[in-house]
Amino acid sequence: MSGVVVPIDKAKLRESALGVVDKKSSVASSIQPLVDLVSSDMEKVNRLILSKTGSDVGMIPQVANHLIDSGGKRLRPMLTIAAAQMSGYKGIHHVTLAASVEFMHTATLLHDDVVDQSDMRRGKLAARMVWGNEASVLVGDYLLGQAFRMMVETNSMGALDVLSNAATVIAEGEVMQLSTAKNLETTEDEYLAVIRSKTAALFGAACEVGPIIADQEQSIISAFRSYGANLGIAFQLVDDALDFGGTSAVLGKNVGDDLREGKVTLPILLAYRRGTDEERSFWKRAIVDGESGDEQLERAMELLVNYDALSDTIARAVHYGKIARDALAPLLVGSHKDALLEVIDFCIERGN
Amino acid sequence: MSGVVVPIDKAKLRESALGVVDKKSSVASSIQPLVDLVSSDMEKVNRLILSKTGSDVGMIPQVANHLIDSGGKRLRPMLTIAAAQMSGYKGIHHVTLAASVEFMHTATLLHDDVVDQSDMRRGKLAARMVWGNEASVLVGDYLLGQAFRMMVETNSMGALDVLSNAATVIAEGEVMQLSTAKNLETTEDEYLAVIRSKTAALFGAACEVGPIIADQEQSIISAFRSYGANLGIAFQLVDDALDFGGTSAVLGKNVGDDLREGKVTLPILLAYRRGTDEERSFWKRAIVDGESGDEQLERAMELLVNYDALSDTIARAVHYGKIARDALAPLLVGSHKDALLEVIDFCIERGN
Repeated sequence: MSGVVVPIDKAKLRESALGVVDKKSSVASSIQPLVDLVSSDMEKVNRLILSKTGSDVGMIPQVANHLIDSGGKRLRPMLTIAAAQMSGYKGIHHVTLAASVEFMHTATLLHDDVVDQSDMRRGKLAARMVWGNEASVLVGDYLLGQAFRMMVETNSMGALDVLSNAATVIAEGEVMQLSTAKNLETTEDEYLAVIRSKTAALFGAACEVGPIIADQEQSIISAFRSYGANLGIAFQLVDDALDFGGTSAVLGKNVGDDLREGKVTLPILLAYRRGTDEERSFWKRAIVDGESGDEQLERAMELLVNYDALSDTIARAVHYGKIARDALAPLLVGSHKDALLEVIDFCIERGN
Repeated sequence: MSGVVVPIDKAKLRESALGVVDKKSSVASSIQPLVDLVSSDMEKVNRLILSKTGSDVGMIPQVANHLIDSGGKRLRPMLTIAAAQMSGYKGIHHVTLAASVEFMHTATLLHDDVVDQSDMRRGKLAARMVWGNEASVLVGDYLLGQAFRMMVETNSMGALDVLSNAATVIAEGEVMQLSTAKNLETTEDEYLAVIRSKTAALFGAACEVGPIIADQEQSIISAFRSYGANLGIAFQLVDDALDFGGTSAVLGKNVGDDLREGKVTLPILLAYRRGTDEERSFWKRAIVDGESGDEQLERAMELLVNYDALSDTIARAVHYGKIARDALAPLLVGSHKDALLEVIDFCIERGN
């Protein structure tokens, strides 16, 4: 895999991103202000997560902790905590819901790895490579069950409604993705429908449950949901670009995984549409016939750069980032709002 | 596969079963009285199930209905309806919960087939053989999500608590089963712990939610739970015996599946413990090394019969059937109670 990294045009990405970032972000945006604001509650979330992966069945904590300890950013639960704090929530249920959200996310990752037959996850062997597909399916089910148990503990029918709805929408998105998986004729709209379901739904729900348990009015609940959902779309689009543009060391997974797994993402769809007949044949061989070795990856990277497919994917992400930014307009100015706005920029810039 | 059926001693099983069946069951016990009592509500359940598998994502209804239409008895949702009726419940939420229970069960079957790499389910190709493991995992997730959404609709925190707890316990049981899968040293207690979790928990919960939504007192709730859980254990043990003693036509799946899948069940564990060193070597080759063709199945059937392993497994089922019977003691005598008692006998006799 070494030697095939064609760096994406960082200056160009930065330029695109400037549409949404503050003046001060000539210094890179950071997730740190959010981390600082929620750190005290996140300690409680992390303790709860650890206690709820405990089971007498030894394999469950092993598999769960393999993934949970592997250095995910815990962005989704942090959003839940921040949204609850901004909504003036004074109880303890936001901690429980944040842990539920992270469990739902972890369950999805475990099942995704089985579905995608992935070898690596966050720079470690995927759980399924260590304990088998069986354990990944079943421990995912266990975590989903625990997520629901925790939600029930909060006694909030509103939060239960939002999160159980997200669970079905996520699964729908994953099933949709199966049918687009090797289909290069997938339209951008169809692709967006997939990531709205599989990624944005949980981001939206994670944000929405904060104001819900704080009994906020509907306009505030909707604002948080819209922020989260659009942030989620931007996040996923950048992720898709990063799969080609990052390095293994930064990403924690190999460059070109999506290509090797025959997964069509927006960068590929754009390059495919914009290419010549010969180039489209190349993409078909790579995606449909599975000819995706080092040579093909190198060619793919060239085409993605030549057709601006990576930078334009980031530009699309910038668009959704702007919607997320405007969604927060009704909220009071302050350190929390600033932190959430900076998260948008961070998500878009993180590939740079 | 043909020609290897060694019939289990039906007279002997009948004799064992007589400990729990009424005098009248010299005529076979039937599930029909239960079916008749719940038929009106079960029509609503079936309509709800059909409407909730509908999704714009075409593959979801296809996969879900493949399994849902394939002629399962719907025993679990019938138990929910009957328990609610007996508890004097007058609303509509028992229908919703019954559909939730069936969705949880169906999700488990979809995931089980992937974990066990089964080819057949209820006499049809397993969904994973038609649409792939990926679809089975994800549509299972979708149905689990829908199950939770429906529970949330009932607004009953008590039912949510019981069913979300069951979801984690089922997954725990499945994970436990992974570690006992090819382990012939599994004790009977360990095996029982697995089936208490993977099968009995949902039977118990299915019964328990009826009196819960009817606001019955705790002793009644506990009675239903105990009935369901012990019925579930008996049901699973008979299922284990049927895997060797039934015929493909009756069972809807091939005889000897458990052996071929290297799944140790109580009949195998009993025959293994009671066998000679040479016979234990045979079991190890069959289960651990996967030597499980027609010849091995024939030998296995011989050993199971010689060591009374099938009839004694049924005898164990009879024991749990008795506990289920006694659990119902606090309930009023009447057609519902009679029907539930007959279900116990039906579950035990169904292999005869």
